[in-house]
Amino acid sequence: MNRVSMIALAGMPMVGPGDDLAGLILDGIARAGETLGDGDVVVVAQKIVSKAENRYVDLAGVVPSAEAERIGGEVGKDPRFVEVLLSESASVVRARPGGVMIMAHKLGFVMANAGIDHSNIVQEAGTEERLLLLPVDPDGSARALAAALKERTGATVGVVINDSFGRPFRVGTCGVAVGVAGIAAAVDKRGDTDLFGNVLRVTIVGQADEIAAAASLVMGQADEGVPAVLMRGLDLAMLPADADPGVRPLLRNPEEDLFR
Amino acid sequence: MNRVSMIALAGMPMVGPGDDLAGLILDGIARAGETLGDGDVVVVAQKIVSKAENRYVDLAGVVPSAEAERIGGEVGKDPRFVEVLLSESASVVRARPGGVMIMAHKLGFVMANAGIDHSNIVQEAGTEERLLLLPVDPDGSARALAAALKERTGATVGVVINDSFGRPFRVGTCGVAVGVAGIAAAVDKRGDTDLFGNVLRVTIVGQADEIAAAASLVMGQADEGVPAVLMRGLDLAMLPADADPGVRPLLRNPEEDLFR
Repeated sequence: MNRVSMIALAGMPMVGPGDDLAGLILDGIARAGETLGDGDVVVVAQKIVSKAENRYVDLAGVVPSAEAERIGGEVGKDPRFVEVLLSESASVVRARPGGVMIMAHKLGFVMANAGIDHSNIVQEAGTEERLLLLPVDPDGSARALAAALKERTGATVGVVINDSFGRPFRVGTCGVAVGVAGIAAAVDKRGDTDLFGNVLRVTIVGQADEIAAAASLVMGQADEGVPAVLMRGLDLAMLPADADPGVRPLLRNPEEDLFR
Repeated sequence: MNRVSMIALAGMPMVGPGDDLAGLILDGIARAGETLGDGDVVVVAQKIVSKAENRYVDLAGVVPSAEAERIGGEVGKDPRFVEVLLSESASVVRARPGGVMIMAHKLGFVMANAGIDHSNIVQEAGTEERLLLLPVDPDGSARALAAALKERTGATVGVVINDSFGRPFRVGTCGVAVGVAGIAAAVDKRGDTDLFGNVLRVTIVGQADEIAAAASLVMGQADEGVPAVLMRGLDLAMLPADADPGVRPLLRNPEEDLFR
């Protein structure tokens, strides 16, 4: 494997609840002059998966709890937004007035605002604000997409659903995997030897996160939104559905995390 | 920009002190059947930059300080290794017996073991262990490489020196930029509007880190080491050398960091 291609699936229409993502992606691949093949990896922005799954919440219908009122007052956020944050999360990891709230999402991700999006959501004049949550089960969403692509094309592909996360220590967001299907999210190289026969010690590679970051680079380049990327040429082992742990191998056990 | 190519510069000989990295990279590009062009980005593994710059330290010549002796005893590491760690670092961020030491490197990176490598360093029989440190000035190394490539080919290219970092919250390493030249490490999109005219709030993108992660994916795929990757097709603005902040825009001010 000496060459990897990342092909932007541009020109996709706005995605709405119930839309057929597999169909939209296959249309995008056809517009790019490609056909899907075995071993390809399709990276899809979390936002369009959530939209297709109708993961919208209308703020107008949210009644904040006393805890949400208290935290909202402390950090200077709409208590209804805090209520949604808390309902999506297992715990608050860091919160500071005027800053983002870093949450441990129930799905195991540590992320700003529990991954809830405000931007690129249609806000009609006179209507209340809408939020967009993560998919209920991003690994399941990824598996369903991989299965639909397989059914329609015969191709065995990997699917990564990515989002942009901030991180400690570094400025700027990076693409990160929130759902994975068909490929190993993490590759364990411990026990392998390096070029000189030294045993490698700490070498679990966050493969799906590197794929997510690579695709994010392509998604972020265009003026128009590019919500999906086809990656070709990666030499990856494909996992059967019954031995596919999804994104979980990338989630550090909180008890083993030096930064919680 | 609808297609990005990542081309592994494979078959490179072992790099040693004083080697001409620009020449080795151009040889690798020629072996891949390519020629360097304006706007290309060359991603180089930190390890070969450090080797070319002879950033080896022989453990046998290291005399540990009392502090290094104390910390080494506490965390179960060779005090001479701890001495080198401390001399490379501004502070210890986290340390735990039996675990890695997370250090704030003097260059501003928060990283395990201050980025010091044991693996893929020739350990001759009967000789003491050697360590390999980060380049003294990775941005300077990147700028020098970009200038040498420009001088020999006429092409204006970006250079990213990458390393693999562990991270909080997630398992597995990801490629991260430690030196940048010719392109913006971080892209500030605050104030831009999204597709619906909402103003984007927190949207500094860690572009050079996404490039580093993408290249790491290609570097890690081969059985043999692939220490450099040519990326083509990214639509990046090129920065003149006199307005090039290098990797610094990616380094979060410790006072603004919620996780230190």
